[in-house]
Amino acid sequence: MGAKALSQQPQKTKTTVDIYGQQYSIVGSESTSHIRLVASIVDDKMSDINSKNPYLDINKLAVLTAVNIVHDYLKLKDEHEKLEMQLTQRIQNEKD
Amino acid sequence: MGAKALSQQPQKTKTTVDIYGQQYSIVGSESTSHIRLVASIVDDKMSDINSKNPYLDINKLAVLTAVNIVHDYLKLKDEHEKLEMQLTQRIQNEKD
Repeated sequence: MGAKALSQQPQKTKTTVDIYGQQYSIVGSESTSHIRLVASIVDDKMSDINSKNPYLDINKLAVLTAVNIVHDYLKLKDEHEKLEMQLTQRIQNEKD
Repeated sequence: MGAKALSQQPQKTKTTVDIYGQQYSIVGSESTSHIRLVASIVDDKMSDINSKNPYLDINKLAVLTAVNIVHDYLKLKDEHEKLEMQLTQRIQNEKD
């Protein structure tokens, strides 16, 4: 994870989270609450995929969780680009 | 993954992809090329995280990949919501 530094380096925090029964130390410039939120989303997704595919080993489960999240990301990115185009179009129309 | 059905069920495709040396069969209504794109993004992210943390086992690597992608997702979601607000504001201003 990253954040932009302006005049000084952002303070790094180390947060220990539990995801699917394993502990992870995550170092980043984000707040502890943000890191906990991210971890809980991954944990929920893994539980959700596990409930539909109970015979997957944890490694495949984690990879398929990542696959699902990338899919959601691309869907949102697509919507975001459409919205950007709409906004650009409106700004252009206001100028005309 | 999911897609909305209108008058008929969307056709399901089964695509086999290779992610980080393991094969996965992914069933979904998305195109094979979309599934391959998603898989390659996950594979790239895993390689990227592995290069920075070479001693992680594959399971932890996959979980941390999911964590990174959720972080990116939340960042994009935040930008998306700001853009939605901007657009709503513009539409409102045009009415006034």
